[in-house]
Amino acid sequence: MNIRLLIEYDGTAYCGWQRQLNGPSIQEVLEETIARIAGVKTTVYGASRTDSGVHAQGQVALFQTLAPFPANRWALMLNFYLPSDIRVLESKEAEAGFHPQKKAVEKEYEYVVLNRAVHSALTPRVYFMPRKVDWALVREALPFFVGTHDFKSFQGAKAELKTTVRTISGFNLFDRGDGFFAFRTRGTGFLKQQVRTMVGTLLEVGFGKRSPEDIARVLKSCSRRAAGPTAPARGLTLVRVYYEGE
Amino acid sequence: MNIRLLIEYDGTAYCGWQRQLNGPSIQEVLEETIARIAGVKTTVYGASRTDSGVHAQGQVALFQTLAPFPANRWALMLNFYLPSDIRVLESKEAEAGFHPQKKAVEKEYEYVVLNRAVHSALTPRVYFMPRKVDWALVREALPFFVGTHDFKSFQGAKAELKTTVRTISGFNLFDRGDGFFAFRTRGTGFLKQQVRTMVGTLLEVGFGKRSPEDIARVLKSCSRRAAGPTAPARGLTLVRVYYEGE
Repeated sequence: MNIRLLIEYDGTAYCGWQRQLNGPSIQEVLEETIARIAGVKTTVYGASRTDSGVHAQGQVALFQTLAPFPANRWALMLNFYLPSDIRVLESKEAEAGFHPQKKAVEKEYEYVVLNRAVHSALTPRVYFMPRKVDWALVREALPFFVGTHDFKSFQGAKAELKTTVRTISGFNLFDRGDGFFAFRTRGTGFLKQQVRTMVGTLLEVGFGKRSPEDIARVLKSCSRRAAGPTAPARGLTLVRVYYEGE
Repeated sequence: MNIRLLIEYDGTAYCGWQRQLNGPSIQEVLEETIARIAGVKTTVYGASRTDSGVHAQGQVALFQTLAPFPANRWALMLNFYLPSDIRVLESKEAEAGFHPQKKAVEKEYEYVVLNRAVHSALTPRVYFMPRKVDWALVREALPFFVGTHDFKSFQGAKAELKTTVRTISGFNLFDRGDGFFAFRTRGTGFLKQQVRTMVGTLLEVGFGKRSPEDIARVLKSCSRRAAGPTAPARGLTLVRVYYEGE
């Protein structure tokens, strides 16, 4: 049976979704927990390879098993053994041919910046930015990212990709009060560190270091050096993966 | 100079506000940090003696010092040495005669319950309650607490108090979505574990174990045994302390 999972995790203690040699990954912990229940090892495929330290509210994953448990019981069984910073919100039988990554049509990410003099004791999973940010300017820069563009300038690390063209269908900024500002972006897919580099560049717009229009120039340059720094992983959360007809 | 602090903390790792023998307290950590800066020990007085594991967004505290630093610099200096789960949001010179606890006219607390099948990996500081709760019934019970009552039935631990009569000016319930429900209560003061025992009793109303009207009977009985269990500390946060003319 093919089991589909909806997973929430705090990525602080993990080296990302994918198996790594340098620390525990979400994928590895899930695979080991499934093996503990089913008795055999199996690969867990995720929709998004979230980077080290990145969180998820709605990661989607798939694995195959011959174990005779009803699909919807897997959430309960996995949560019993999983550490509390990984929770399986739902488990169900996957449709034939379902693949979390290949069948995904869009993904949505949130990036939270805390812009005030003092960090928060209660909400540490944000990018703490005590420097003055002109959020009206940041907001003006957002539309330059929306649409189909070559995002090569915003690709953090080297990757062998056929194309660096992606489509962003929405990019919004929400003022949540008390200095918390949340970016929400949705698109057909994102390059490695793309969201974090877009946020790092947008903050330079907010500092007055770049104009909002400069985003168009950076996109056109196709050069990573034209963009701003990569904002830290801790502020980023994979919110949702969208599939056809859901 | 008398310095007034506004403090946020995650109480998970602490045995409460007040100095204890069985573990580190918020008060103790603050006093030691002040001593590190000022060179001499001083007592820090807090507005509310939050219990072990209880959090604060807006604890107010006061200390006296002869150290020659401007009052508003103390926040920065303290945050430099304090652990990241305690943050001083603001420091300023206190008015003559100010006392955080004695001058407080009202306090506001929030209690968050997560009512769904699976706990949250990203928001662990809640009371996780997978059992079915009828929140409409809970809401009907809230007005019975509002007003001036003898809250003896809701006093958790023994305490030598002149009176157990308190006034609650507001008690609301907010549905925050995804199974998160937040109680907000404001009043002239709360007895030890009062908010948590009110929440524990309200949840019994939500389970159908008590009627909303039963709250009136429990108040009248003046017996702790008539009330429900004490809800866990981790869901409780001191939100704000109110003072005359602020």
